[in-house]
Amino acid sequence: MGKTLSQIAQAVGARVLGDESVVVSGVASLESAKPCDLVFVEDGRNLPAALQSQAAAIITGKANENYNSTKPLLISEQPRLAFARAAALLSLGKCADPWVHPSAIVHVSASLGKNVSIGAHSTIDENVTLGDETRIGPGCHIGRGVQIGARCSFLANVTIYPGAQIGSGVVVHAGAVLGSDGFGYVCDTATGRYEKFPQIGKLIIEDNVEIGANSTVDRGALDVTRIGRGTKIDNLVHVGHNVLIGEDVVIAAQTGISGSSVLENGVIVGGQVGIADHVRIESGAILGAQSGIPTKKIIRGKGVVFWGTPARPIREYLKELAVLARLAKK
Amino acid sequence: MGKTLSQIAQAVGARVLGDESVVVSGVASLESAKPCDLVFVEDGRNLPAALQSQAAAIITGKANENYNSTKPLLISEQPRLAFARAAALLSLGKCADPWVHPSAIVHVSASLGKNVSIGAHSTIDENVTLGDETRIGPGCHIGRGVQIGARCSFLANVTIYPGAQIGSGVVVHAGAVLGSDGFGYVCDTATGRYEKFPQIGKLIIEDNVEIGANSTVDRGALDVTRIGRGTKIDNLVHVGHNVLIGEDVVIAAQTGISGSSVLENGVIVGGQVGIADHVRIESGAILGAQSGIPTKKIIRGKGVVFWGTPARPIREYLKELAVLARLAKK
Amino acid sequence: MGKTLSQIAQAVGARVLGDESVVVSGVASLESAKPCDLVFVEDGRNLPAALQSQAAAIITGKANENYNSTKPLLISEQPRLAFARAAALLSLGKCADPWVHPSAIVHVSASLGKNVSIGAHSTIDENVTLGDETRIGPGCHIGRGVQIGARCSFLANVTIYPGAQIGSGVVVHAGAVLGSDGFGYVCDTATGRYEKFPQIGKLIIEDNVEIGANSTVDRGALDVTRIGRGTKIDNLVHVGHNVLIGEDVVIAAQTGISGSSVLENGVIVGGQVGIADHVRIESGAILGAQSGIPTKKIIRGKGVVFWGTPARPIREYLKELAVLARLAKK
Repeated sequence: MGKTLSQIAQAVGARVLGDESVVVSGVASLESAKPCDLVFVEDGRNLPAALQSQAAAIITGKANENYNSTKPLLISEQPRLAFARAAALLSLGKCADPWVHPSAIVHVSASLGKNVSIGAHSTIDENVTLGDETRIGPGCHIGRGVQIGARCSFLANVTIYPGAQIGSGVVVHAGAVLGSDGFGYVCDTATGRYEKFPQIGKLIIEDNVEIGANSTVDRGALDVTRIGRGTKIDNLVHVGHNVLIGEDVVIAAQTGISGSSVLENGVIVGGQVGIADHVRIESGAILGAQSGIPTKKIIRGKGVVFWGTPARPIREYLKELAVLARLAKK
Repeated sequence: MGKTLSQIAQAVGARVLGDESVVVSGVASLESAKPCDLVFVEDGRNLPAALQSQAAAIITGKANENYNSTKPLLISEQPRLAFARAAALLSLGKCADPWVHPSAIVHVSASLGKNVSIGAHSTIDENVTLGDETRIGPGCHIGRGVQIGARCSFLANVTIYPGAQIGSGVVVHAGAVLGSDGFGYVCDTATGRYEKFPQIGKLIIEDNVEIGANSTVDRGALDVTRIGRGTKIDNLVHVGHNVLIGEDVVIAAQTGISGSSVLENGVIVGGQVGIADHVRIESGAILGAQSGIPTKKIIRGKGVVFWGTPARPIREYLKELAVLARLAKK
Repeated sequence: MGKTLSQIAQAVGARVLGDESVVVSGVASLESAKPCDLVFVEDGRNLPAALQSQAAAIITGKANENYNSTKPLLISEQPRLAFARAAALLSLGKCADPWVHPSAIVHVSASLGKNVSIGAHSTIDENVTLGDETRIGPGCHIGRGVQIGARCSFLANVTIYPGAQIGSGVVVHAGAVLGSDGFGYVCDTATGRYEKFPQIGKLIIEDNVEIGANSTVDRGALDVTRIGRGTKIDNLVHVGHNVLIGEDVVIAAQTGISGSSVLENGVIVGGQVGIADHVRIESGAILGAQSGIPTKKIIRGKGVVFWGTPARPIREYLKELAVLARLAKK
């Protein structure tokens, strides 16, 4: 099941210094490494510790290419990335064989690709499409008309409401809910009572998105909620109706995004951030943890970190904190 | 399956200008409207766009009743509300036929009303009561002795702990947990270890409440947790033990309400608000997103918005922010 | 099914004043007490109300030992704790008989202790170990190789990813997800795209931990996530990868703890607290609700309450708030 360093180097774009024929079968941290494992060190500082670990070989950066190493080194310009790719390569083929569990309920009209897996007690409703090699865990519910691409992985107890369109290579962790009704009501001014505004729009999730455990993504009210290619969403995140999230956006745990807000490509959002409705976060902006963006606000600044509620550039916020602390000490 | 404009106007309390016999079968946004759809515009500003859409007819306000329209108009005093009601009317009868899936486990002592639906792999424990036309989605667990009224809808993978009492017309979204143990422990001062305080009270949810995906509502410790008629709760909200929520309260996503707090009728709570224990939010107060209410605090003021942590009237809070920004710029 | 006051007094370490042969069968609040119930009052103030309740007997503190009571009293140094223990004692044996539901899917290689219960539609994967008297609710998924000790209780729709190690006496509420992938990616600087960093570490949960509904706990990336003995975690809490939580820690609802942070023994964390990555909260510190701890910060101070973002000792924070309010009023 292992790979030679030569095979790995070729796959991840690294260069081997030392014995190319050494075989590794997994990746590990320096502390937990066994003799069959590959480890990595970002820079020279941890290289001696890596050499003292039980690991078979070490991925590291160019700074170490002249190091007189007692273990083979794989030299990469992005050693952390090379390590991530090596891990992915070594985990290939470790999945169980594809299998539709006999307790799964699959509607006769559902269309299943090649090598699809469906876990115990899952339900696949009418007109669902599952692409090749997609895996649905146990206890999932995939609603009517949901379309899912190839090589997706849905862990246990995931719920997808009817009509969602999901690309390929998407990973959705346990307990996540996709395509739920948005939070939209109309108050009858005569009675003060709320009546439900229609929540009948779409949810589109593009390729290679990953969504964390127990996160919730509402579908559009009348239009669409969209999560762009490659975006990564952590646990317990809330995405409201009509939200448009671009490509390669990163959203940490427990952040909430209210209706109709837009996050452009490459935005980075810390944990517990609150984004009100109709906000626009422009490409490359960074929102610090727990910051809050008020309604209709536009956040602009490539690489600029915003912090606080209401969020402002972190330099301003830190200066305010310093001024306030000084005044309180008088 | 459609309705004439005349039928809709009568049901939603609007007046038709133009051909009353036109039939519509759904609602849509201006962008997504098809020729069989009804759309709405709040005011005159979007009326030209609505007329250029493919929609069959337009719901709008009194301001437009003299507009020389090329499509039939339904004139309403509350056009958004009329649109919501039209959508509800047009979606009637679109549900699948009632059916208890053969894989559902229903205890012999459970009492099922007329036209009840129970999804695949759900479990209905002993002495559960389900009212007429109530629908339980797939993968739900309804605990011992739970009483549920008529016309409720529980989406997939919902869990209800034993003994909860739920009214009629209640909607609970996927993954929500109702009636779980409150967070109550007693610290043994001799050992510093925590032991569980009994969490054996009730959960009462009144008619027409809606609860979002993956929200959690704890039952009372010894007494009751209650959510009043018509209250709407968004996704990932936490309601602690012994909390009393009044009628027509609106609570946005990721808000948390600690033990024994009271929210009176008509309170509006933004997203990610934190309400500590034994707080009272009086009728008509509005809590801005991410605000925090400390223990035992009373918040009073009909229509007043509170913001910040600790929450204060928004005018004060904004003034403080302005003063601080000015000082930091010196 | 009841117990005499004499039996209860012996079990919880209290002393009976009055008729020791009185039998009680449950606990209750003063408001809800029935004639078979035991109630408690912390101090003398509520004793008259307790005597007017329907309760059979009252647990109370030493201050009341000379009170001329019309009902039997159980005198304890820690009356709240004695009440909690009495409740636990009286609830013993109220569980349903152990039973593996025929719809549960249990892999032939799983090892089940004595008197194990497994609910309907649960799946127990290969090489899972369940200790004596452990109860798995309906709709749970226990992944490959998970080890669970004795007397645990997993409520409905819980998901445990492969390989987690869980001690004895652990309670996990409905919808919780344990052992999910951490949020770790490497950005390819050439393309700006994120690739998954391996999330293949362990999750270890020690004895007597309780985890609330819909909370999520990620396993280690390469190493371990650990939750120490006796720690109590509320609903909708997020624990990131490689987090180390000590013993007897209390974490209120909706708090999030980012990767590699450490919470030492006896830490108390309020609701909606945000703890960034690589933080250390030293033993005995208290984090107020909604406070935020920035990356790599060390929080030190036994019994000191920290508040605000970034968190500072509450005295400082309150002084800053007061200064700011004063300036804004000028």
